[in-house]
Amino acid sequence: MTAAMPDPAPPYDGRHLLADLHGCRGLDDVVLVEAALRAGAGAAGATILEIRLHAFGPGLGVTGVALLAESHISIHSWPEYGYAALDIFLCGRRHDPAAALSAIAERLDAAEVRETMIARGYGLPNP
Amino acid sequence: MTAAMPDPAPPYDGRHLLADLHGCRGLDDVVLVEAALRAGAGAAGATILEIRLHAFGPGLGVTGVALLAESHISIHSWPEYGYAALDIFLCGRRHDPAAALSAIAERLDAAEVRETMIARGYGLPNP
Repeated sequence: MTAAMPDPAPPYDGRHLLADLHGCRGLDDVVLVEAALRAGAGAAGATILEIRLHAFGPGLGVTGVALLAESHISIHSWPEYGYAALDIFLCGRRHDPAAALSAIAERLDAAEVRETMIARGYGLPNP
Repeated sequence: MTAAMPDPAPPYDGRHLLADLHGCRGLDDVVLVEAALRAGAGAAGATILEIRLHAFGPGLGVTGVALLAESHISIHSWPEYGYAALDIFLCGRRHDPAAALSAIAERLDAAEVRETMIARGYGLPNP
């Protein structure tokens, strides 16, 4: 009998959750958006390296990112449409992008969320 | 005859290019990665608000983002696999995510690029 082969390195298990949030409130409020990103990272069990946000002015959008030890959460908002484009990219199996999305959508009072999950990583088979 | 209706607001035309870069070199080199992000933003015709990068140490990955007036370019690298996960999210029709990807892939000496383009925005029809 042949010796059992050692397990190969586990494939990289990155999950990238793209979410379009509609019917939101407070999308020009950089303090609220930062609180939402912090809540999302916390709900996912992720570690924040830093949060950087840029507010384009009263009534205008916010663009920013929470850089994480496990990748990132980004947001770009259009308050005039109640719309925010959210990305939650988490590497590793321990972290929960869906929990992050729920926490953020709740903070931004989203009426509708459309989401797409994309697998990312070096271990994915050829398409 | 009825009067012509005015054109509705043009649908938001966000393009989010997800790219997985394989066979790259220099992915632990934060200076190289920053130069690649700058080259990408420049090639796209985008305006950089700031670039934030975190290097996890020699031989280890870099995580970071170029925050743009037109959304963002993010990167997460695994130099031990020659792999980088790149996102190029550009709102507006004037900016060219494919040009950004080409510039970045060239700087990182990528041997293989797998890409997926996702439409984002408030103007998209219901799925």
